[in-house]
Amino acid sequence: MTGRMRAVVIRKKEKGSIAVAEDMPIPIPGQGEVLIRVLAAGICGSDRHLYNWDPSARDWINDTPRIIGHEFCGEVAEVGPGVPSPPAEGTYVSAEMHETCGQCFHCRTGQGNICEKTIIYGYQKDGCFAEYVKVPASNVIPLPRDAIPHKVGAFLDALGNAVHSTQKVNLAGRSILVLGYGPIGAMTAAVAHFVGASGIFIAEVGSFQLEKAREWARSVSEERGGVGVKVFDVSKGGEEAIEDTIRDTSGGVDVVFEQSGSSRALNDGLRMVRNGGHIVLLGIPGTKDMTIEDYGKNVIFKGITLHGVIGRRMFKTWYHMLALLKSGLSVDHVVTQEYPLSDFDKGMAAFNGGESLKVVLFNK
Amino acid sequence: MTGRMRAVVIRKKEKGSIAVAEDMPIPIPGQGEVLIRVLAAGICGSDRHLYNWDPSARDWINDTPRIIGHEFCGEVAEVGPGVPSPPAEGTYVSAEMHETCGQCFHCRTGQGNICEKTIIYGYQKDGCFAEYVKVPASNVIPLPRDAIPHKVGAFLDALGNAVHSTQKVNLAGRSILVLGYGPIGAMTAAVAHFVGASGIFIAEVGSFQLEKAREWARSVSEERGGVGVKVFDVSKGGEEAIEDTIRDTSGGVDVVFEQSGSSRALNDGLRMVRNGGHIVLLGIPGTKDMTIEDYGKNVIFKGITLHGVIGRRMFKTWYHMLALLKSGLSVDHVVTQEYPLSDFDKGMAAFNGGESLKVVLFNK
Amino acid sequence: MTGRMRAVVIRKKEKGSIAVAEDMPIPIPGQGEVLIRVLAAGICGSDRHLYNWDPSARDWINDTPRIIGHEFCGEVAEVGPGVPSPPAEGTYVSAEMHETCGQCFHCRTGQGNICEKTIIYGYQKDGCFAEYVKVPASNVIPLPRDAIPHKVGAFLDALGNAVHSTQKVNLAGRSILVLGYGPIGAMTAAVAHFVGASGIFIAEVGSFQLEKAREWARSVSEERGGVGVKVFDVSKGGEEAIEDTIRDTSGGVDVVFEQSGSSRALNDGLRMVRNGGHIVLLGIPGTKDMTIEDYGKNVIFKGITLHGVIGRRMFKTWYHMLALLKSGLSVDHVVTQEYPLSDFDKGMAAFNGGESLKVVLFNK
Amino acid sequence: MTGRMRAVVIRKKEKGSIAVAEDMPIPIPGQGEVLIRVLAAGICGSDRHLYNWDPSARDWINDTPRIIGHEFCGEVAEVGPGVPSPPAEGTYVSAEMHETCGQCFHCRTGQGNICEKTIIYGYQKDGCFAEYVKVPASNVIPLPRDAIPHKVGAFLDALGNAVHSTQKVNLAGRSILVLGYGPIGAMTAAVAHFVGASGIFIAEVGSFQLEKAREWARSVSEERGGVGVKVFDVSKGGEEAIEDTIRDTSGGVDVVFEQSGSSRALNDGLRMVRNGGHIVLLGIPGTKDMTIEDYGKNVIFKGITLHGVIGRRMFKTWYHMLALLKSGLSVDHVVTQEYPLSDFDKGMAAFNGGESLKVVLFNK
Repeated sequence: MTGRMRAVVIRKKEKGSIAVAEDMPIPIPGQGEVLIRVLAAGICGSDRHLYNWDPSARDWINDTPRIIGHEFCGEVAEVGPGVPSPPAEGTYVSAEMHETCGQCFHCRTGQGNICEKTIIYGYQKDGCFAEYVKVPASNVIPLPRDAIPHKVGAFLDALGNAVHSTQKVNLAGRSILVLGYGPIGAMTAAVAHFVGASGIFIAEVGSFQLEKAREWARSVSEERGGVGVKVFDVSKGGEEAIEDTIRDTSGGVDVVFEQSGSSRALNDGLRMVRNGGHIVLLGIPGTKDMTIEDYGKNVIFKGITLHGVIGRRMFKTWYHMLALLKSGLSVDHVVTQEYPLSDFDKGMAAFNGGESLKVVLFNK
Repeated sequence: MTGRMRAVVIRKKEKGSIAVAEDMPIPIPGQGEVLIRVLAAGICGSDRHLYNWDPSARDWINDTPRIIGHEFCGEVAEVGPGVPSPPAEGTYVSAEMHETCGQCFHCRTGQGNICEKTIIYGYQKDGCFAEYVKVPASNVIPLPRDAIPHKVGAFLDALGNAVHSTQKVNLAGRSILVLGYGPIGAMTAAVAHFVGASGIFIAEVGSFQLEKAREWARSVSEERGGVGVKVFDVSKGGEEAIEDTIRDTSGGVDVVFEQSGSSRALNDGLRMVRNGGHIVLLGIPGTKDMTIEDYGKNVIFKGITLHGVIGRRMFKTWYHMLALLKSGLSVDHVVTQEYPLSDFDKGMAAFNGGESLKVVLFNK
Repeated sequence: MTGRMRAVVIRKKEKGSIAVAEDMPIPIPGQGEVLIRVLAAGICGSDRHLYNWDPSARDWINDTPRIIGHEFCGEVAEVGPGVPSPPAEGTYVSAEMHETCGQCFHCRTGQGNICEKTIIYGYQKDGCFAEYVKVPASNVIPLPRDAIPHKVGAFLDALGNAVHSTQKVNLAGRSILVLGYGPIGAMTAAVAHFVGASGIFIAEVGSFQLEKAREWARSVSEERGGVGVKVFDVSKGGEEAIEDTIRDTSGGVDVVFEQSGSSRALNDGLRMVRNGGHIVLLGIPGTKDMTIEDYGKNVIFKGITLHGVIGRRMFKTWYHMLALLKSGLSVDHVVTQEYPLSDFDKGMAAFNGGESLKVVLFNK
Repeated sequence: MTGRMRAVVIRKKEKGSIAVAEDMPIPIPGQGEVLIRVLAAGICGSDRHLYNWDPSARDWINDTPRIIGHEFCGEVAEVGPGVPSPPAEGTYVSAEMHETCGQCFHCRTGQGNICEKTIIYGYQKDGCFAEYVKVPASNVIPLPRDAIPHKVGAFLDALGNAVHSTQKVNLAGRSILVLGYGPIGAMTAAVAHFVGASGIFIAEVGSFQLEKAREWARSVSEERGGVGVKVFDVSKGGEEAIEDTIRDTSGGVDVVFEQSGSSRALNDGLRMVRNGGHIVLLGIPGTKDMTIEDYGKNVIFKGITLHGVIGRRMFKTWYHMLALLKSGLSVDHVVTQEYPLSDFDKGMAAFNGGESLKVVLFNK
């Protein structure tokens, strides 16, 4: 397949140069590669950082023009040479967008997500905000059509971060505290609820996010009894209310998910986790350093465990995520806006405005 | 408290000598003991073996008269001397009915359930089919009234066996096969569903049990989508249908729960589990020996793990079970008959007739 | 490289047709393959089964002529096309001789050893009892020259089976019972000792093996104090002596390694393991079925775990094995005979005669 | 037994009031208690903080006079009433000196070390720098006389901290970095070496400690080959040398033990640990807060796990520690000075002077 396609492109390494283009060449799949026709793609927080040309994101861009985007689903359009058992044309798929070396200790022991030679699509190679994207065949993940609508297939990469976070501790019957109800926090809460967590506490500062959290809390409480979901507005402090509720309800939170990157949130979590509990760390702070308050008391004497989470276990997380979705896990409430790819600017505006969780772009 | 009480008693070590008595002395709690007024109690399969004076159960009886029964809930009636932080009178409780030595490696490392000096109430000491029962204070488990109705509190010991089975492997997103839909199988399926298992296959031979399994399958499928629950009648063979379904649906079962004690069931499980899967073993066969067919192929080459399950982790399983119940786990559908304690005979008749899952006796 | 080479070949699918040939073509590495000049190779028990044309082994042979052998070390001689980051010529290497599909759940989650599409070199493709062997580049394992002499590099595949067995349970401070002191048993004992096992019991029936076990026991007792190693001759029964010693020394064995394939050994292990202990299963019996005696008592009531072990975790076991060898693990005492490849018949005769542990063939 | 005894006592809550007294009353064992004749006791870093009346330690003292000390071995002298299966007089024992509530979630699940109601002997109750000490019978640990000399029995509490640290990750074949070669660091290194760690890196600032580390490194390198032990003087910086060595030898450290409480050490560890590695945290800093540098890069993107360690798993760590000692673990090189109890001042002076690892006091 040859020709031109629509795509969201960084034209020059400078602010304001990311826009929809109509004339990008359709990629040609090379040795061991697969070309995928993109059906839908999700906007990630890191895409916003790119769009705003923040140092944390722009430094990963190695060259221009560069097509951005790294969450999507699509259909196999063409298979390059040298692919063993190639997927049939039209196969419904997503793809892991971290390309790893395949030869290091991590890659050869099922931990490709921490390979030191990782190349990230949408940064160092062309991404998926486009009509077509090519990826290594070994990164392609076939999807079950009936369990995963396009709208959800669009952001499996992000859902994988949430699922990976929940793989650190068996959450059945555990109480959890989610710090930050962005898309990842919303998905983490949904997974925790699905696997039987007992008592889900959510702390947020944004009014839109709080409303979404409360909406979800109501929907799941109707469906199932139990301790339920409690949402806390901490925009003006008020962590005491969480501590009081936790003390009354579960005597200390078993697992904290720090998904905001805020130093205050992390220290809240350290105070609220029970002795012997777990803190799962995913949020990246704006500053380089992070101060842990009362380290001796809150980390050592409590005997807690902290887990850094990066990417998705390759490919343990993918299999687990698909199994959860096939089993009935529902996450489509996380999508708050949908746009055609050509309206990328509108999607980014919605996301930047703060009144959104996950924004999905469709090719049509 | 002194006086006489109603209880189900073994009068003599011979068949047919188990009956309701009205004149048993109310136990007096000794050093470190608590007297509990029984509210409700569940009949266990081992009680039936006692009732029928089967060798497997009768050999555990050390003396007569002996009050039987070892699953119950009640309220604290009196506390003996030497109990630190004694529970208040009227506290709603259940109790672990395995009394362990407290001093061996197992007891001191959270594995009291495999203590070699275990004394079982209802066998070596008086049990709970009575108006009152006394137990060591350290075995008492306070229960939350709003999360656990008496009807369910009545059989937490049995539910603990099922929960312990599910603690061997994280079941979220896993496919499972339950071999035998007796009370333990029914509860295992319920817990697995609650914690997000993906694809629950149930094989049974009894028509009453099959009907109950199908009833439950319908009820949970309405509530949640996904792969769902599939029930198979294997009374006339027909394991091929299970194998076909498993192959189509999940490509091999992740975890098998062998809860029937049948050699055929175990070997079915070994064939149907996927490479690298797990078999959780709880069923006790009628015969001493168990033959594993095609051992090299089904155990070694498959690289599977087999887990023997006995009792409840003391007290990890109890905490986990209470957390699941507080979280919304529902198991009251497992109770198929309810009787007053005075109608113990009717309860046992129902149980013996095979048209029951869990039978609960109430004091009123 | 082209030309003819020496190799041990199955000429026809019949007994007595395995012999050294001088005229086999040197393999030509294809897409993604590496040609390795073999330095040394170990004879495995399965090679003996092939040599004796036993059904268990011969049925795996798909075609003739077939070069046998699947344990070796060598040097990279030539690299085929399409190998990313190809190893330099002369690199000292071994190789995993299970070729797996790379696309299934197991392969993509670090469990290639249980891939259902495994192809085994020396059976379904040509093996390493030859001057040269070709394997997929992704199966090649670079070796550190100073930590691994050729004599040991020759049987890393087998050592991997032993190391994989020891990966099932952390053995530091644990007591173990090794049932069968063949090459795998000898290596398992050595690894267990190296990682701090406390009390190593070995049961054997062969007089040569018993002598080797006692020799090793003496050598390690001199080096380190502690409970030490105890060797038991069970050729005429005598398991009671083991039970007595275990009872006195450790109150029950923490971990049993069943590496003989004998039904009697497995049942000995089930009796001797402590409550809550582990049985690691690797031995393949001559018969299809395996009878577990007193299943209820020895498996369920004991609450034990049984682990089937097949191959080597790909590639977790390889990394772990290399780390142990670099750390100082010594296994060269397992080699009891060394021959040039041309004397393959003598090596096999020594192995068949029973007066050997590991026999190594050298190319020179 | 009644009478007066020698003991090290805090007379008044002020600096300089800790001294040897000859007239303390011998404790009388109450309900469930055991009186132990102390044979030997170790001085802990926290005893030094008490001696120097540092805020971190003095705030734990609830009353005076208070006998200090919490590491010891001795012989049972007398058993109070109500002790089931009381130990025989003269039994060689040590004791866990954290008294826990026995009733909370942690206590009932084998994690008494994080009980929120812990009472520490030597702070809130009288300790073991005395001729006699009384403790709850359930805290007493019988010791094997031939595996544990008094000199080592004297500091099992501290060894337990080191062993607990090593229980967080299976260290066989792993490379480790020990930050701080005080007594705990020295013991951690010894345990890691004993269980087969591959590459042990030690960083220290004190010249005495460095000499001791190098002495030990030489002694174990002679006994066993392998990567060995490398000691680094970081008193004037020089972490680059460690990083270079780690890069060459193992490509990143698998497990870091932070046992110094220094912020610089923790951040060194975070930089030097490999992706996916572990940091075991035990050192308590002098300041309340701890700053993690480059948190996103070193914690999240590396996908590491951090483990806070407090006390000893009750009683899993004790059993594991005894098993290691019986197996041959040697730690007596950690004792650098021995004094009679009456020379407590000299012992403390040696410890305070910095020219010591573990100082042991003997009753004679």
